Amino acid sequence: MKQQSRRSFLKLSALGGSALACMAAPLRAQGNKPQFNKVADVIVIGSGFAGLAAALEAVEQGRSVMLLEKMPAFGGNSAINGGAFAVAGSPLQAKEGIKDSPELMLQDMIKSGRGLSHVDLLKNIVYGTRPAFDFTVKYGVQYKPFVQHFGGHSVPRIMQTIESTGGGITRPLVEAARKLGVDMHLNCAVTDFVQDKDGRVIGVKVLERHNYEKPSSGIAQVYGARRGIIAAAGGFSQNVAFRMQQDPLLGPNLESTNHPGATGEVLQAMLALGALPVQLDQIQLGPWSSPDERGFGLVSQFNTIAGFPKGIMVDKRTGRRFVDELADRKARADAILQQLDENGKPVYPICFTDSEGAKLAQTLPNGLKYGVIKKFNTIGELADHYGIPKEALIKQVEEFNGYIRAKKDAQCGRPLDIAIEIKTAPFYAARVWPKVHYCMGGIGITKDAEVINVRTQQPIPGLYAAGEVTGGTHGASRLGGCAIADGLVTGRVAGAAAAKAPAADL
Amino acid sequence: MKQQSRRSFLKLSALGGSALACMAAPLRAQGNKPQFNKVADVIVIGSGFAGLAAALEAVEQGRSVMLLEKMPAFGGNSAINGGAFAVAGSPLQAKEGIKDSPELMLQDMIKSGRGLSHVDLLKNIVYGTRPAFDFTVKYGVQYKPFVQHFGGHSVPRIMQTIESTGGGITRPLVEAARKLGVDMHLNCAVTDFVQDKDGRVIGVKVLERHNYEKPSSGIAQVYGARRGIIAAAGGFSQNVAFRMQQDPLLGPNLESTNHPGATGEVLQAMLALGALPVQLDQIQLGPWSSPDERGFGLVSQFNTIAGFPKGIMVDKRTGRRFVDELADRKARADAILQQLDENGKPVYPICFTDSEGAKLAQTLPNGLKYGVIKKFNTIGELADHYGIPKEALIKQVEEFNGYIRAKKDAQCGRPLDIAIEIKTAPFYAARVWPKVHYCMGGIGITKDAEVINVRTQQPIPGLYAAGEVTGGTHGASRLGGCAIADGLVTGRVAGAAAAKAPAADL
Repeated sequence: MKQQSRRSFLKLSALGGSALACMAAPLRAQGNKPQFNKVADVIVIGSGFAGLAAALEAVEQGRSVMLLEKMPAFGGNSAINGGAFAVAGSPLQAKEGIKDSPELMLQDMIKSGRGLSHVDLLKNIVYGTRPAFDFTVKYGVQYKPFVQHFGGHSVPRIMQTIESTGGGITRPLVEAARKLGVDMHLNCAVTDFVQDKDGRVIGVKVLERHNYEKPSSGIAQVYGARRGIIAAAGGFSQNVAFRMQQDPLLGPNLESTNHPGATGEVLQAMLALGALPVQLDQIQLGPWSSPDERGFGLVSQFNTIAGFPKGIMVDKRTGRRFVDELADRKARADAILQQLDENGKPVYPICFTDSEGAKLAQTLPNGLKYGVIKKFNTIGELADHYGIPKEALIKQVEEFNGYIRAKKDAQCGRPLDIAIEIKTAPFYAARVWPKVHYCMGGIGITKDAEVINVRTQQPIPGLYAAGEVTGGTHGASRLGGCAIADGLVTGRVAGAAAAKAPAADL
Repeated sequence: MKQQSRRSFLKLSALGGSALACMAAPLRAQGNKPQFNKVADVIVIGSGFAGLAAALEAVEQGRSVMLLEKMPAFGGNSAINGGAFAVAGSPLQAKEGIKDSPELMLQDMIKSGRGLSHVDLLKNIVYGTRPAFDFTVKYGVQYKPFVQHFGGHSVPRIMQTIESTGGGITRPLVEAARKLGVDMHLNCAVTDFVQDKDGRVIGVKVLERHNYEKPSSGIAQVYGARRGIIAAAGGFSQNVAFRMQQDPLLGPNLESTNHPGATGEVLQAMLALGALPVQLDQIQLGPWSSPDERGFGLVSQFNTIAGFPKGIMVDKRTGRRFVDELADRKARADAILQQLDENGKPVYPICFTDSEGAKLAQTLPNGLKYGVIKKFNTIGELADHYGIPKEALIKQVEEFNGYIRAKKDAQCGRPLDIAIEIKTAPFYAARVWPKVHYCMGGIGITKDAEVINVRTQQPIPGLYAAGEVTGGTHGASRLGGCAIADGLVTGRVAGAAAAKAPAADL
């Protein structure tokens, strides 16, 4: 045997002797120290919400930070997210008299998680949302002047960036990181981790000048981290083979809302290092997307801000509603995926609202321009266009408007606090079909964002993880607005923990 | 850096150079060959259905085999299983005129898997059940002379050992393995794997004279395998910390039916080696067990063979049935777990049959002796004993008997082909509550039982897995009788594949 793994060596040593053991000598090491091309206190992998929050937190605590992004732009998948942030106890909630608390948000998230949530991790997040919100405001993030009510939340608690995208958060944080001296690397793919003889993670192997479309492209370098390495590398929604191993139904015919970089190599590298996998098969479909456009698109936001909360969604064959349009994402996506014809082909449901309801939908003009949202003068016209039984649809709208007046949705049990009667022409509609959106599962972490060893259930020294790459927090279904909450809060926790870790002698 | 992992090294090499690399020299190697204490063609880890089938298959193909069992007895958890084996196309089905086929069994298993099943793996199993059945008969396993109908199967296809336990299979297979010269090790715990410089798994580190209650006990040895190592080490139902990471509801207050050795260390060691985790959070609760006894107990078999197929289960507060007693395990367990009082405490349902229905229940005498099954002269007495509303229960029984006569269960949609009217005193009843029973999730394998690398999705050379330690086959819920099917079939596949693998030069 010419070669053994480090973990094998440790195990053998621990057993106090064996016929075999292993010694390793770096090819060009000085003494017994590794030769790194570059060293920082903290290395952060990924530049989405979690990575940026981690980097800024570590810098705030006086540490030198290297931030590695494999794509040609900073922001990761966060930059194309809808910019909706669930905050329990925001200033705007107070102003609008909305009674909310971290405990209430916790209960909403536990319910959505369907028993699979790791409640200790969830607690971290709900109590961290208000401080994380203030943290973003400090760095210049701007939010819309109203609070929104997303599916599965029991009160309106969504703050949304004025840009209606996560870029409204990532851009100011990237700027701040630059100003504060974070060493920022683009096109820099992490290919593996470096551990010292005690198993502490002390570095990463990377490919600089990497082209993400060519897996082995770039120049190999090795970077060291004295205090810690934070994996904030996101999910694997775009890795079809890997997501199908976990959930065989999520095949190549199902689109993803994610950017092309969401392919999970860093998650896989952590697993191969011995990190604990948690609930990898819990993969969320976004219920608000459209089959008429690629990716997240324009309809997702239209439905989130207008179609679902201010309108209704109907089965096109009957003109009837079939699910609480503000249920959590899993409940809605599961219900929509049941809309199949006798041959098992999708019968795309239609979601629509009126001109009052569509007022706040920033993607409406472009949606109309590209034909993925349609405009109608009457409900009858809308019905005719999509082939919905006209009388049934008109009756459904009247019935729904009655629920609004009665303040009780006797049909689907939806909370109607921000709903409106659908009556003011013109009406706006879109076809709906779910897309692969978010990986609830991932790497197991402690409350301090330490990566857990699959064999010992103890932290792997030097390795932290934050955001979508982690698993267990959201259980079977993440609520809307909670990706930003998770990313920012766990990123800050990881940044603070790595900053405080004892320094390795590199 | 004194040490790097093998995988890191390979990665770096593949990148064509780096500032760091790794060379390893075994402490007491001769030349560059590893020093093994013992070498065989094939090493099998675990001695349940899968391990024994793998060992025998490899021996049949002329290979030398070492079989390693960490517990003080052979048979693993299989030995205490109920001995029920789902066979699609058994001789007894033909004799009884039951029309069955692998395709029909496949459809039943796909339905139970709720979209999470890996259909290619399932196909392997259903087509392998009849040959595996013949394989056991060849080695002397004896089955009862009637076919049973278990929950979720669309026809009766369960063959059960005359002993009503898996020991009826493992004992003859252990004897056969001994006779055929398999090198059998008891109290031998595998602690890690040995890989050669190319990543091929060529050996295992073990602790001989191991006491499973003392994790590090025993004498360290290293064994080599020229052709392959087959992990058939079972599930992790008894590893509370690990199962809670995957499903937080499965805490220490929920019992397991499994033997104490079902703790998953070999699964964890494979994960740490870079094996693909698949659906680890899919953990099955057995719906037929009793809160009045430990482990699998006597009631599980009473309910499986008598209470569920020949009787009914009722909510003790209403005397009414609440689930198809022959639904798949997940449907039943989920329904039972909903039986909670206003404080969230279990309200144990009551399952009962009459003296005709109880005829085949071999555990009845001992169940009565230990008081976990109760005997009543009338349905009224039964109702009084458990505090069930008497009139309601009598009405429920009459109603159910009517369904039998009408050949249609209008209440819960249960197939009634082997059901009987509940009318012949005395009546036998037991309290029911689910227990952690089976890990559907585990290590990802190919159709040839090769373990899949989490990073490359390609096989890890030299490493095979079979039985409960593998994941993906059963998706969200395994049907009854399919653990033996899975273990025996995948064990045989793994044994054949390892036997055929090119020999490493050890």
